[in-house]
Amino acid sequence: MARANAFYAQSGGVTAVINASACGVIETARQHKDRIGKLYAGRNGILGALNEELIDTGRESAQSIAGLRSTPSGAFGSCRYKLKSLQENRREYERLIQVFQAHDIRYFFYNGGGDSQDTANKVAQLGSSLGYPITCIGIPKTVDNDLPLTDCCPGFGSVAKYVAVSTREAALDVASMSETSTKVFVLETMGRHAGWIAAAAALAQEGPGEPPHIILLPEVPFQRRRFLAKVKKTVERCGYCVIVVSEGAQYANGRFVAEAGTSDAFGHTQLGGVAPTIANMVKEKLGYKFHWAVADYLQRAARHIASGTDVAQAYAVGKAAVEFALAGKNAVMPTIVRKSDKPYRWAIGEAPLARVANKERKMPKRFISADGFGITTAARRYLAPLIEGEDYPSYRNGLPQYVRLKNQLVAKKLPPFRI
Amino acid sequence: MARANAFYAQSGGVTAVINASACGVIETARQHKDRIGKLYAGRNGILGALNEELIDTGRESAQSIAGLRSTPSGAFGSCRYKLKSLQENRREYERLIQVFQAHDIRYFFYNGGGDSQDTANKVAQLGSSLGYPITCIGIPKTVDNDLPLTDCCPGFGSVAKYVAVSTREAALDVASMSETSTKVFVLETMGRHAGWIAAAAALAQEGPGEPPHIILLPEVPFQRRRFLAKVKKTVERCGYCVIVVSEGAQYANGRFVAEAGTSDAFGHTQLGGVAPTIANMVKEKLGYKFHWAVADYLQRAARHIASGTDVAQAYAVGKAAVEFALAGKNAVMPTIVRKSDKPYRWAIGEAPLARVANKERKMPKRFISADGFGITTAARRYLAPLIEGEDYPSYRNGLPQYVRLKNQLVAKKLPPFRI
Repeated sequence: MARANAFYAQSGGVTAVINASACGVIETARQHKDRIGKLYAGRNGILGALNEELIDTGRESAQSIAGLRSTPSGAFGSCRYKLKSLQENRREYERLIQVFQAHDIRYFFYNGGGDSQDTANKVAQLGSSLGYPITCIGIPKTVDNDLPLTDCCPGFGSVAKYVAVSTREAALDVASMSETSTKVFVLETMGRHAGWIAAAAALAQEGPGEPPHIILLPEVPFQRRRFLAKVKKTVERCGYCVIVVSEGAQYANGRFVAEAGTSDAFGHTQLGGVAPTIANMVKEKLGYKFHWAVADYLQRAARHIASGTDVAQAYAVGKAAVEFALAGKNAVMPTIVRKSDKPYRWAIGEAPLARVANKERKMPKRFISADGFGITTAARRYLAPLIEGEDYPSYRNGLPQYVRLKNQLVAKKLPPFRI
Repeated sequence: MARANAFYAQSGGVTAVINASACGVIETARQHKDRIGKLYAGRNGILGALNEELIDTGRESAQSIAGLRSTPSGAFGSCRYKLKSLQENRREYERLIQVFQAHDIRYFFYNGGGDSQDTANKVAQLGSSLGYPITCIGIPKTVDNDLPLTDCCPGFGSVAKYVAVSTREAALDVASMSETSTKVFVLETMGRHAGWIAAAAALAQEGPGEPPHIILLPEVPFQRRRFLAKVKKTVERCGYCVIVVSEGAQYANGRFVAEAGTSDAFGHTQLGGVAPTIANMVKEKLGYKFHWAVADYLQRAARHIASGTDVAQAYAVGKAAVEFALAGKNAVMPTIVRKSDKPYRWAIGEAPLARVANKERKMPKRFISADGFGITTAARRYLAPLIEGEDYPSYRNGLPQYVRLKNQLVAKKLPPFRI
């Protein structure tokens, strides 16, 4: 293929390392100026393409781009916007092709989860059928770790590390206060459908019986009575109990624990996160003093405690995406292939977008302990390497120095599009 | 004074650096074996003295003690147990003296907040009047930064750094998603009476108008209407709004915002933290999509992101406490004296316990911005140096290596005491 421009977009919930993937894409593209001319980024993800709001990444210095490697969030803006199916909204796909054509874009790099891989795949097909072939490469990203065909997802290792570190620290706090104060601590983690993030808290354990004592996964139907019995037993044995609960924890009928809630003294339903719900349930039945935390965005934005492994992999998939495109591959996604657990070795593989799209990988049964409140040795072997290594950002005045880009838009060439 | 034993106890809510103070006490005492024989630590704080549960710190290796410097929480256990006044419960004070006498303890180091300084002061007075003079030195500790006579309190700088770093990171996340998703993010911090911790979030700002856009301090009466107007204006101007709220935020009548709550669609009062209360208030009135986080213990246990300044000061007050005792001082507390803001220079000073005890230092008016939603340049000048410097713990397998002590108790010599 002759020299052409490229388009990169960030999609869905951002992570501590999605910008490291952007860094991999941009730095690699810059090494191939004979093949890739301009590299545009979508302002607010795919919306940037639909609205023809294209950021010229060429305006950013090499230093700024290098700084993306250690900057959390989405430097170009991301969005939660899922293109409908081709049948339902063909005009959006056609608009993408029009914008790409107007700006001589022949490479499309889409950095996101399952939905995004699906979109990238459809764009590849449509471009071809409309006589404007475009190379579409997906770049995996999701803290939820639920993409198939890749050993893990960039973004997950860092949130896993944050949760494991925070659990270890909070557990020490509770342990030292439990004689006269808090006996039960509940930490709520992300993970609406898959329990990977909550499961990673188990890495905080240094031996059997250590905190976290209970992990509540979406994969295991929540049973109030069994849970409370376990809390009681743990407090009686250890003096305190640390619970990590996935936001997606649910009853057998699929109802979220957070929705279900408990009642206060006046019979009112309590709304809010699952952590306060669980904590109040414990208080009501067992009377223990409790504290709870909801890390929310703090966990996925915590670049200050990112996993070195995760940062390296996020960069690598960005780099590989460009290399795949230049090698003539299309409608594929670079994946992480595990070569060995210990010492941990990995390489880049590839998966066809058609097989990645819209599939969710839950925790396998063999990763969940027999009582459902913890993880197995196999899970520990899988998770442990993903949080290895520290990759600290640089600091100024006691705060991490995260880059901000100029994000200059290029002139529009097309009439506006109504989304 | 001839050679005698010493007793050290941790009191109240623990911090990321209270063990650094313990490290300062123990390492310094070990350098003065001619004057200080055994150094005992109270198991679970002052309860350890009342129950004659004395940990022999001499059983711990130099390496373990050095490791305390980078281990959060209270390594010997802490407690929330306030001794009553001498009039109300003289027997508890007498018991302390009896235990000290039985174990030849002539030095009492009490590491805590205002209540603890009060207790240490009373023990000093009583020992003297009972003919068993004991040297009592307070060691300041509180994340709340509310002790008088010291420029700052060890423990505060690290929680301030955690909050500033987390706010900067979460704000980047929200900014990058705000076009199509979350517009309002609320972070709840500790600080039931004083707004120091929430105020520190302002250090995340790199310029005027930057997030956090709104800080809700306990010192400023919460006005719902004014607050909502500010949120609306901020979202209209910036596209999103980051709010940091102190758990102690309250209405003019002294009612906590968290207690007050709002009602859900069914007219039920919502309980829980102040962050969800505030977030729901915004949703109900302005309709913005929101997220909220409650850091709870994560913030005060976050040794992984401790302030280097704070760690150094926590160690220094522990060291100074022993040096004060050996210099014949009594009923005093080492303090932090600020010598200059920029470059930041500090030294150890001293304050009489009688003047420290049971006083709370709130944020001064001149630190609060005119609109009540932020801080002034003076506050920024005060806060900025306290979060400076990183002091990372060592890591193994991707997790910080925190020490665990043997905590071996010495044989009891007295009959049991009923608390």
